[in-house]
Amino acid sequence: MAFNHQKTLMAQARARGTFDTEALAQIIHGGAEGLQQKRGAWSRVEEAVGATDPDRLPDQYAYTSREDLYREGLQTGKAAWIDGVKHGHSLFDVITPRYGMSNASPFGIHYNLFGRTIDLMGTPEQKRKWMPLVAQGRVNGAYIQTELGHGSNVAGIQTTATFDPVDDAIVLHTPQLAAIKYWPGSIGYSATHGVVMARLLVPTPAGTAAGKPFKDHGIHPFLVQLRDPETGQATPGLELGDIGLKPAYNQNDNGYLSFDHFKIPRTDMLMGHCALDSDGKFTRYLPPEAVYGTMLSSRTFITFGAAFQLAYALTIAIRYSVVREQGSLPFDNQGKASQDIPIIAYRSQQYRLFSLLSSAYAMSFASKITRKIQDDLDARLRKGDYSTVTHAHGLMAGAKAWFTTVAADGAEDARKCCGGHGYLNISGLPDIVNMVTACCTLEGDNMVMWQQTARYLMKVMDVFESVQPRTSQVPPEIAYLANDPAILCATPIDPASLKDLHHLSAIRAHYHVKTAHNALTEAVKEGTPKPQAWNLHMLLLIRAAHAHISHFVLSSFYSALPTISDAKIKPVLTQLCHLFALTQLFPQLPTSSPTTASLPPAFLYPRFEVIASQQTNALLEAILPNAIALTDAWDFTDASLASALGCKDGNVYERLMSWTRQLPINARAKEPGGFDTRESWERYIKPALRIDLERGTGRRAADERFGEGIRARL
Amino acid sequence: MAFNHQKTLMAQARARGTFDTEALAQIIHGGAEGLQQKRGAWSRVEEAVGATDPDRLPDQYAYTSREDLYREGLQTGKAAWIDGVKHGHSLFDVITPRYGMSNASPFGIHYNLFGRTIDLMGTPEQKRKWMPLVAQGRVNGAYIQTELGHGSNVAGIQTTATFDPVDDAIVLHTPQLAAIKYWPGSIGYSATHGVVMARLLVPTPAGTAAGKPFKDHGIHPFLVQLRDPETGQATPGLELGDIGLKPAYNQNDNGYLSFDHFKIPRTDMLMGHCALDSDGKFTRYLPPEAVYGTMLSSRTFITFGAAFQLAYALTIAIRYSVVREQGSLPFDNQGKASQDIPIIAYRSQQYRLFSLLSSAYAMSFASKITRKIQDDLDARLRKGDYSTVTHAHGLMAGAKAWFTTVAADGAEDARKCCGGHGYLNISGLPDIVNMVTACCTLEGDNMVMWQQTARYLMKVMDVFESVQPRTSQVPPEIAYLANDPAILCATPIDPASLKDLHHLSAIRAHYHVKTAHNALTEAVKEGTPKPQAWNLHMLLLIRAAHAHISHFVLSSFYSALPTISDAKIKPVLTQLCHLFALTQLFPQLPTSSPTTASLPPAFLYPRFEVIASQQTNALLEAILPNAIALTDAWDFTDASLASALGCKDGNVYERLMSWTRQLPINARAKEPGGFDTRESWERYIKPALRIDLERGTGRRAADERFGEGIRARL
Ligand SMILES: Cc1cc2nc3c(=O)[nH]c(=O)nc-3n(C[C@H](O)[C@H](O)[C@H](O)COP(=O)(O)OP(=O)(O)OC[C@H]3O[C@@H](n4cnc5c(N)ncnc54)[C@H](O)[C@@H]3O)c2cc1C
Ligand SMILES: Cc1cc2nc3c(=O)[nH]c(=O)nc-3n(C[C@H](O)[C@H](O)[C@H](O)COP(=O)(O)OP(=O)(O)OC[C@H]3O[C@@H](n4cnc5c(N)ncnc54)[C@H](O)[C@@H]3O)c2cc1C
Repeated sequence: MAFNHQKTLMAQARARGTFDTEALAQIIHGGAEGLQQKRGAWSRVEEAVGATDPDRLPDQYAYTSREDLYREGLQTGKAAWIDGVKHGHSLFDVITPRYGMSNASPFGIHYNLFGRTIDLMGTPEQKRKWMPLVAQGRVNGAYIQTELGHGSNVAGIQTTATFDPVDDAIVLHTPQLAAIKYWPGSIGYSATHGVVMARLLVPTPAGTAAGKPFKDHGIHPFLVQLRDPETGQATPGLELGDIGLKPAYNQNDNGYLSFDHFKIPRTDMLMGHCALDSDGKFTRYLPPEAVYGTMLSSRTFITFGAAFQLAYALTIAIRYSVVREQGSLPFDNQGKASQDIPIIAYRSQQYRLFSLLSSAYAMSFASKITRKIQDDLDARLRKGDYSTVTHAHGLMAGAKAWFTTVAADGAEDARKCCGGHGYLNISGLPDIVNMVTACCTLEGDNMVMWQQTARYLMKVMDVFESVQPRTSQVPPEIAYLANDPAILCATPIDPASLKDLHHLSAIRAHYHVKTAHNALTEAVKEGTPKPQAWNLHMLLLIRAAHAHISHFVLSSFYSALPTISDAKIKPVLTQLCHLFALTQLFPQLPTSSPTTASLPPAFLYPRFEVIASQQTNALLEAILPNAIALTDAWDFTDASLASALGCKDGNVYERLMSWTRQLPINARAKEPGGFDTRESWERYIKPALRIDLERGTGRRAADERFGEGIRARL
Repeated sequence: MAFNHQKTLMAQARARGTFDTEALAQIIHGGAEGLQQKRGAWSRVEEAVGATDPDRLPDQYAYTSREDLYREGLQTGKAAWIDGVKHGHSLFDVITPRYGMSNASPFGIHYNLFGRTIDLMGTPEQKRKWMPLVAQGRVNGAYIQTELGHGSNVAGIQTTATFDPVDDAIVLHTPQLAAIKYWPGSIGYSATHGVVMARLLVPTPAGTAAGKPFKDHGIHPFLVQLRDPETGQATPGLELGDIGLKPAYNQNDNGYLSFDHFKIPRTDMLMGHCALDSDGKFTRYLPPEAVYGTMLSSRTFITFGAAFQLAYALTIAIRYSVVREQGSLPFDNQGKASQDIPIIAYRSQQYRLFSLLSSAYAMSFASKITRKIQDDLDARLRKGDYSTVTHAHGLMAGAKAWFTTVAADGAEDARKCCGGHGYLNISGLPDIVNMVTACCTLEGDNMVMWQQTARYLMKVMDVFESVQPRTSQVPPEIAYLANDPAILCATPIDPASLKDLHHLSAIRAHYHVKTAHNALTEAVKEGTPKPQAWNLHMLLLIRAAHAHISHFVLSSFYSALPTISDAKIKPVLTQLCHLFALTQLFPQLPTSSPTTASLPPAFLYPRFEVIASQQTNALLEAILPNAIALTDAWDFTDASLASALGCKDGNVYERLMSWTRQLPINARAKEPGGFDTRESWERYIKPALRIDLERGTGRRAADERFGEGIRARL
């Protein structure tokens, strides 16, 4: 390729970096070994699906019908699946080769949801039977919970699982339309098996006579074979199908499932947490909530994935911003056409992209902590120790909401940062935006999640306010709530100091948690029933949870800084952490920072705002030379980004045009079987341009007053 | 249909309304006549495309390839086009039959961009020739400005239009890859003609010898025939094609265009604003900016469209929220499964939906004002009066940014309010979200728009600070800036009073405009060059523009209230206006209200926040009974919503399942030529489940440590 201005701009921007990106990539990807392992897996899969040539239009942009997208998912999913099994790794259990959540593939529910549920809730015998099949990839499992009528409220699930003592069986049935399973990934056309959540009904001895023929034992998981592994045909008694296109995840066949009195052996009920014996006796070993353990852990995975997805969108947007030259600063335009500057030079572009970059790094460090908490919880649960569940859940619910909100809004703003071209599917951005946006809903709707964290915080405050708390026993994430706010506030705050901002963040979170707690307590004292008091102050409660998690994320990033030993990386991450703190507390633009948790009034005075604004500007300038280095460090391959705007070489215009010309609607417009332009012209356009009008009617008559005529009369 | 619980819930919610929705529909749609005309047009088009049966899966969800979606656009576009021509109306010039911006159709650029440019910039003779063809729909025109390398910076356009004195012609040419036209709507395969913006180069007499063979006269519009109207074949010398799938607007063929020394008569340059005579003499009658008049007016249309698009998303989300029952309030759950409450009962759901509803109404009233300003401007421009351009532009740029930001973020939150089902394409929501999101970019990127308003505001402040302004000459939209803030602040403020909030909104806007103006003035005084000073304080400037437009929208709504005569409607709109003011000034949730224009410190004290929170709660409760009435009043047809969740009858579950079963991937899975499940099973799934592993490698060996094995090592 000849001299290429965009490639030169990219090379120059890359050269400006002040640290070794490889060293930072190792920090992000769990050390040199982790990074190498990741690289191996990605390159093998990309080789297998033929995605290594960045000048070839990726298949998902070429073949676009619902059926085509599913087929593309099968192809990539199969390659990732085989790689994991052959090479004994689990890299694609959480994330697809394109950094979507793993449930974007028709094989993507198997390990984390299907396998994990058996692991958490099976009996030792069930595990012995199933876990090897899961581990070796001999079955493709789904997690079948949501129904047309029930999602968030899992306890309301209506699919019945009725014990049949005669056959020692369980009969799964869909009693009404709204009870049809709807949404589970991979069940449309791909999964061989599934864990089905259904309501266990056991016939009562007194039975029908008493008008209560069954005892309802609540929701439990059941193992179901969905298809013949040989032919892929649905097991008789099941209706299965796809639920159609979604904004993303179309590589997966999210589906529906209706049961018609479908019989399974009693022993296919997962009974690690309870038992149903052959004469219908039901015993519970663990609290009913134990049933939802899978969802708790998958929220941890989402925090991890969200950080990557935001980084993915930012890598594309920042690379593009370095090579896209457009316009000039006001008053600087001499009327000459050639005076374009790279858009990264605009302060607003810097603020949007770097504040989000600071969020992505903050999330990356915070997700290492959520991960540790989850690992600790897992170890405890295996020993039957439930003591940390409440804390882990109280943190993870809100973390899931915070991470996905910031990543979804952030990825969308990164997309907007690419102007019109960011609105092309071939930019790769729409797909990643739509993947991460869905995470605000799946595995627990965020509004429900915020409230679960708020509920936990209210309990914490009840304890802190009733007894003298001993900080030694308090988990670090909530320790700041145990302190007297008066003591905290006595410290003078300087927004130019990261330490002080971290402090201010604690003060803010404490203020909002306390405000919500007071409001709730008072309402109840005044006689409002608890549920109504909760609803009355729901907005304050959500805001409190938001401020709390924002503080958790900042604390995670802040406390990771001392562990960074590389002398060139440490100051750069410190700048990012400082910027993150500032954007959390003093957001500067009406985009990207959707916080409404304001500062306590005592901390609002103009001087503060001025310093914050100056400090923000200074940090943006400091980060600018490392913009490319900080995105390179995430180590995304060109194929994984699948973006005409985001490839490492910066060669955006040639690639955009090349991919565009390769689109089948263009490339095959003249070929037989290709898009028939002549037919569409004859059928639609020509007739529209030749309407025969009777004299005096319609626009023909309105010719003279056309100037007004073309204005809508609305 | 038998008894249907969801339909009952909808009927009950509808019955709770306290006013006549027909009367409000007339206010929204420009009187009884306007409403009737609209209804007629919609029902004719829906009849023509066979979209009247709400139980039939709409075509755009069934046939989903890039080519299919384009064909669907041709079909609907043709029907709307013919209706407009036959019945002499312009209802579909601004908006599609599905309430997208009109550029979502392959016929959608014709009136507002193509026709309007000729109207604004053609000579009388050119208009006489072209306007009848435009009005009668004999050609299908495009507006061809953006290039691969240039969008926002129109002055940087690189396509050349070189005067050829020998043939008295103009030669259009694409001098380099980045100069290829890229994005213009309808040019891929549909438009017959286009207005092309290109750089006029005229040979200089001294010529090549002096090293400056051409004089550059800047960007001008040229009329080009793109295709043979008979065959649809591209005119020789042009390469035309589609740019592929986008998040929405796939019914339109946004395309690319490359010129290979393409010759047109000199007289096909639009010369209403300048002249190029046959011996190359160039004369300009109007300022160069006159060339961009089309974009200014299309921004006005966008404010109008954005209000409808937000209302569209809200209609679906509010209807669904009334019939969707899910979960219960904390502490209210007796463990019984059937205790679901409608999600509209949750305070967070009310806040999200009703604050957005208040925004949609505010935008509807504000867009009547932008419309009036535009009409006034048009009338003046026709008389050569340029005196109000600066003001109109200064308002419209920011209004475009504010409306599209609020509508885009709002539509997305409305979508999220529908949980998982809002993530289905058949919910209708993803498409509307993606249509309105694009409006943040097209016709002027919002970051550029904010700054144009900011620039205007800075000029206004320069004037106000240098001379004693006489309020009588000041346009009403900026009058509040002329007042001394001290006088404004002296008034005591009560957040429970709408009048006071309106006042506070002015104070806030004044504060931010003043802050930005001071910062800029000071930086320049201290010696920073103006462009750099602008960049340094860009974030303050954007915030100022944001606060100013937010105040404009509130003022528009507020000042419309006295004009409402219906005694039942007036109090309801007053509640909405009050809620709008509160959410602008005291946002309660970290969603839907992306403002960072904080209140001036003097107005921040806890008492305020408490009153604002109480007042918000009270208004949400007051609005609740009218939730359905306020969405019915927008008068969307079922077909225009094309939503399984949003139909008027509330029958969501039956329709969801019926549409799902009609999806071709399901309905035709067993038919010949339909989706071949057996083939995909044999090719992808079966081989994945049967990998032959050598002993000791891969996951097979990891069986025992499976519990950890399925956890990603990341
Ligand atoms: C891409 C994708 C993949 C999925 N994969 C699977 C899968 O593999 N298996 C499976 O079983 N399911 C799956 N689901 C379904 C998913 O789990 C549910 O959509 C999710 O749990 C949300 O529940 P819902 O749809 O019922 O939303 P709803 O609960 O109906 O929420 C609708 C609205 O009500 C509000 N709301 C609800 N309850 C409350 C409350 N208590 N307080 C305040 N507001 C409330 C919500 O905020 C939201 O605005 C998937 C969904 C998606 C989008
Ligand atoms: C759906 C759709 C339909 C379209 N239809 C047409 C059509 O019919 N005809 C046509 O000619 N074009 C059309 N366009 C193109 C459209 O007009 C441009 O995309 C739009 O003007 C934005 O310009 P850009 O893409 O060059 O963005 P850019 O200017 O490259 O913007 C990229 C980024 O740089 C930032 N930026 C740029 N300048 C500044 C600045 N001065 N200060 C701060 N930040 C800045 C932006 O905020 C953005 O984040 C269409 C686009 C879309 C998405």
